[in-house]
Amino acid sequence: MGDPNRKKEDEMEATSRHPSLPYKVGIPPKQKLWKEFSATLKETFFADDPLRSFKDQSGSRKFVLGAEAVFPILSWGRDYNLSKFKGDLVAGLTIATLCIPQDIGYAKLANLDPQYGLYSSFVPPLIYALMGSSRDIAIGPVAVVSLLLGTLLQGEVDPVANPVVYRRLAFTATFFAGVTQATLGILRLGFLIDFLSHAAIVGFMGGAAITIALQQLKGFLGITKFTKNTDIISVAKSILSSAPNGWNVPTILIGTSFLVFLLSAKYIGKKYKKLFWIAAISPLVSVILSTFIVYVSNAEEKGVQIVKHIEKGINRPSVDEIYFTKDYALKGLKIGIVAGMVALTEAVAIGRTFAAMKDYQIDGNKEMVALGAMNIAGSMTSCYVSTGSFSRSAVNFMAGCQTAVSNIVMSIVVLLTLLFLTPLFEYTPNAILSSIIISAIIGLIDFDAAILIWKIDRFDFVACMGAFLGVVFISVEMGLLIAVSISFAKLLLQVTRPRTALLGKIPGTNVYRNIQQYPEATKVAGVLIIRVDSAIYFSNSNYIRERLLRWLTDEDELLGSTCLPKIQFLIVEMSPVTDIDTSGIHALEDLHRSLQKRSVQLVLANPGPTVMDKLHASDVANLIGEDRIFLTVADAVQTCSFKFSEDV
Amino acid sequence: MGDPNRKKEDEMEATSRHPSLPYKVGIPPKQKLWKEFSATLKETFFADDPLRSFKDQSGSRKFVLGAEAVFPILSWGRDYNLSKFKGDLVAGLTIATLCIPQDIGYAKLANLDPQYGLYSSFVPPLIYALMGSSRDIAIGPVAVVSLLLGTLLQGEVDPVANPVVYRRLAFTATFFAGVTQATLGILRLGFLIDFLSHAAIVGFMGGAAITIALQQLKGFLGITKFTKNTDIISVAKSILSSAPNGWNVPTILIGTSFLVFLLSAKYIGKKYKKLFWIAAISPLVSVILSTFIVYVSNAEEKGVQIVKHIEKGINRPSVDEIYFTKDYALKGLKIGIVAGMVALTEAVAIGRTFAAMKDYQIDGNKEMVALGAMNIAGSMTSCYVSTGSFSRSAVNFMAGCQTAVSNIVMSIVVLLTLLFLTPLFEYTPNAILSSIIISAIIGLIDFDAAILIWKIDRFDFVACMGAFLGVVFISVEMGLLIAVSISFAKLLLQVTRPRTALLGKIPGTNVYRNIQQYPEATKVAGVLIIRVDSAIYFSNSNYIRERLLRWLTDEDELLGSTCLPKIQFLIVEMSPVTDIDTSGIHALEDLHRSLQKRSVQLVLANPGPTVMDKLHASDVANLIGEDRIFLTVADAVQTCSFKFSEDV
Repeated sequence: MGDPNRKKEDEMEATSRHPSLPYKVGIPPKQKLWKEFSATLKETFFADDPLRSFKDQSGSRKFVLGAEAVFPILSWGRDYNLSKFKGDLVAGLTIATLCIPQDIGYAKLANLDPQYGLYSSFVPPLIYALMGSSRDIAIGPVAVVSLLLGTLLQGEVDPVANPVVYRRLAFTATFFAGVTQATLGILRLGFLIDFLSHAAIVGFMGGAAITIALQQLKGFLGITKFTKNTDIISVAKSILSSAPNGWNVPTILIGTSFLVFLLSAKYIGKKYKKLFWIAAISPLVSVILSTFIVYVSNAEEKGVQIVKHIEKGINRPSVDEIYFTKDYALKGLKIGIVAGMVALTEAVAIGRTFAAMKDYQIDGNKEMVALGAMNIAGSMTSCYVSTGSFSRSAVNFMAGCQTAVSNIVMSIVVLLTLLFLTPLFEYTPNAILSSIIISAIIGLIDFDAAILIWKIDRFDFVACMGAFLGVVFISVEMGLLIAVSISFAKLLLQVTRPRTALLGKIPGTNVYRNIQQYPEATKVAGVLIIRVDSAIYFSNSNYIRERLLRWLTDEDELLGSTCLPKIQFLIVEMSPVTDIDTSGIHALEDLHRSLQKRSVQLVLANPGPTVMDKLHASDVANLIGEDRIFLTVADAVQTCSFKFSEDV
Repeated sequence: MGDPNRKKEDEMEATSRHPSLPYKVGIPPKQKLWKEFSATLKETFFADDPLRSFKDQSGSRKFVLGAEAVFPILSWGRDYNLSKFKGDLVAGLTIATLCIPQDIGYAKLANLDPQYGLYSSFVPPLIYALMGSSRDIAIGPVAVVSLLLGTLLQGEVDPVANPVVYRRLAFTATFFAGVTQATLGILRLGFLIDFLSHAAIVGFMGGAAITIALQQLKGFLGITKFTKNTDIISVAKSILSSAPNGWNVPTILIGTSFLVFLLSAKYIGKKYKKLFWIAAISPLVSVILSTFIVYVSNAEEKGVQIVKHIEKGINRPSVDEIYFTKDYALKGLKIGIVAGMVALTEAVAIGRTFAAMKDYQIDGNKEMVALGAMNIAGSMTSCYVSTGSFSRSAVNFMAGCQTAVSNIVMSIVVLLTLLFLTPLFEYTPNAILSSIIISAIIGLIDFDAAILIWKIDRFDFVACMGAFLGVVFISVEMGLLIAVSISFAKLLLQVTRPRTALLGKIPGTNVYRNIQQYPEATKVAGVLIIRVDSAIYFSNSNYIRERLLRWLTDEDELLGSTCLPKIQFLIVEMSPVTDIDTSGIHALEDLHRSLQKRSVQLVLANPGPTVMDKLHASDVANLIGEDRIFLTVADAVQTCSFKFSEDV
């Protein structure tokens, strides 16, 4: 539209804004109860409209679509071709070299024997490849979940004294973690994981990374007696009390030199994106080199701790090892819920990040069902909780993965390792595993994100630091609890103490805006315009009523010292008030009554459809007066000023 | 302002809205961290600005003001005069006649001897008169709290088998109820009681009233063996299983006739406001008459249960009866918190209602300190939890009370009763007390309020009915729990699934509004305008991003079947978006990226001060482009349409 049109419009606008002819505020057509209810239900649980593609389809087509929904491989598998496979093959081999040494180390974090880490990189990725919808995620054990599971499990059972019970409880927890994940997905409660805010996750991950690094000092320094607690103070005590006699010099030498190598490789891979494969294969190179050195130099006789033994062969079935009896099942359930939720958060965050990069959609709830199914299957085949790994998924992405087939490739490499190569790890020094874990988890400490959070939102920063300090100084669970509590407190604060703002007229326009944001905006004589910045619910209705009266008192006080006329109209800009409940309606009534006692008239500007509906249902619209409800603040001000100038 | 001014304004507006000259969106001045933090703190805990009057005052004046703040009697006492006292005397005498028979009955609800009800109408009102700021509230034991306390206490201790332990636990609970109330007030956490929504209270009170009425059937029908449960099914079983042999005919006769009398008096009092005193004194008249009848007719020998004995004399000190040892103190604490919160809710609701009627301010937090102090004092002088009574406060108000002196008058009358008149109640039949309680609590069933809630907000109605059915069919505590849970679920739903609305141009104006509300509003070619109706936080950022993309997909699908141009601009109306956190910023970034892939441009209209601040802090303002952020939707549409017409 060009200029002439605009001019006409403005004229029309001028007509419609004549004081005697304000545009009538619309009342939406009454909705049927059932329709209203089902619309709310749909927005809550089916916000992503998952059944869209099923609409207007034949029965058999619906069946195919349904099968594809549960097993996306049926959908993308049909278009699979050789060029895609090339990408997946390279990516799969790369993440396999990365995951094998990591798996062995992570299993230790969970206080399990090394083969369980490898098992968990074999079965779950296969299941995920069938059911998952992310193309870039790399599935397997991850550091944070391993640590969390290890900490929670050893709180219940001593892994050294009762290794069998411990392992069985681990499978039980894995089973319930899977059940939790699948249930959340099936009940479409996926949005619950959104309650762990981004800021809280950044803090939690950073804290967990430091905790994991601290745990690695045991292997890195070759200490034999080490604390079971994960907080920084216990660990520092443990290290200092064992120094220097408890430290093993050859171990430190091997560990340090390879850590330097790994970090340099990582740095190069980050700086020159094309050389990412150097960073990717450096762990395997380190393992091979260090194993060879130890084997040749007989360093294990000088006190260098080695892996010693990894059981050969593939996963044994473990259905009969899951506890279903009351006591242990309950413990497993508790641990499974926590570990499952954290694992979900990580996997969904990864899935979303890469989906946004390649612009495809991920259905969070379906993804949860896939992850849940994979962990349930895992718990029956000697695996512990698996999820998406940040570091390996990034490598997978950079290596050019195309589909979940890269996970299948990785899975096959792990299978071959389990069948034939485990004896080769006998002389691998634990220090190398520690170095690999330290270099892997260092990326979880996201300084930039923390700084950005500080810049954007101070309250978020508090949540972030709360989670971080909680993990580092108390325990992993406490950090998680602190993060969730602070996040919830923020939400409650929002619904309890919403903002209100004083509006003024922006010079040269008919627009009314927050005077704080537009200091050039001017007040209108005899009229006070306040915007309420939230739905009015029971949790804030009293506050809003009192706050509006306080604005009035403040303004009257300010005017009292001048010769300006007193306030006669309180215009409440209702645009942001998207909903109101019975308490809110009562608060409006009370406000109206209090204002009448002060000879101030209550005027509403732009109440939304729901609010208008309820104002009418409760008859408050009549109490206030239909002619005191306007489409815009400008309309309201004009009518008020008109009356005001008549009065004066 | 008259017409000419308006015209000039519209012209100015036209200038400012020229596509090449959109009004720049303001960025508020950066606030110092400490200032920002203290402002949030102030709005959260000192929203009512309680220290306003202390500003710019001398030290001695501040001391006087401080003393007046704690003991408002120092303030209003100075203006007290004879005419006020006349009003207070009449009102005090009226509520005394009402409270004495009620107290005796309510004590039974709490499974305590009748004198404890009277004790609780002696000390607490005196303390309240010194510290409270409501002029109309009538303090003493109330039905709902008595029932709640009785139910909770008998869950821990059997009142028949262990009367002493039971009584001591009652005092302990009262002590902790007072501590809870005072603590909430001192820590300025008074807003916490707002989380019990109006709708939930209506349902809870209605349910409690029915439960209490059911309990009264024991005395009313003269049943000796009665269930301890309060749910309707247990009570019905109890009544039916004892019928008809367990029923006492003379008791039923006396009870029914006086209930008819009481209800008629109540009806007359309600219909002819001036005759309210008939309703007010009818309980005492009933007691006197029925006692006389029983005494003369020897009805107690025909199985009519009578009060028998009320201990003479004033309250004994009970400090040494409060449990401070671990086990019982903990039980008392738990019960005290629940009873204290419910008592607070009732008292604050009453205080606010009458304050609004007479237009004076009540400081909720100060009120809580007063109520807490009064219950702490009460627990040390053989009283159980007292609070404001709905029925007696209404009578107090109608009888013309002026200040809290009416409570002192009532207290003195109760004192005299305790000293001299208790023997007169020996022959009072229990059935009369039951009739009095039934007629008193019948007003708590607020059908009109429930109907209004149904009309205004269906979700509120669910909370209301949940509380009601929970109380009636399960137990008082369950009803409370259900009410609180539903209320919280509603708040969480609000912050998880905020509304979004499609906007259109209202014909003849430059105003864009929800098409659902204004069906005459028209869409603009090539532009999709969506309003987001909530702050964007971690709990909803993903939903909002996905919902916006779904609006786009839906619109494109709709347009696909026509020959209209595709959408090129997505204008997001941000007026209701009062805040955004780091997750929200990331969601905006992701949205921008997704839109770019679809060749749609993201345009923002009217972001508020906080949002602008954060858009700049995070550099997302640059990513989107400063020239794509507009003051109004109209400005944005004009610029977009301009570009659009150039493109086409």
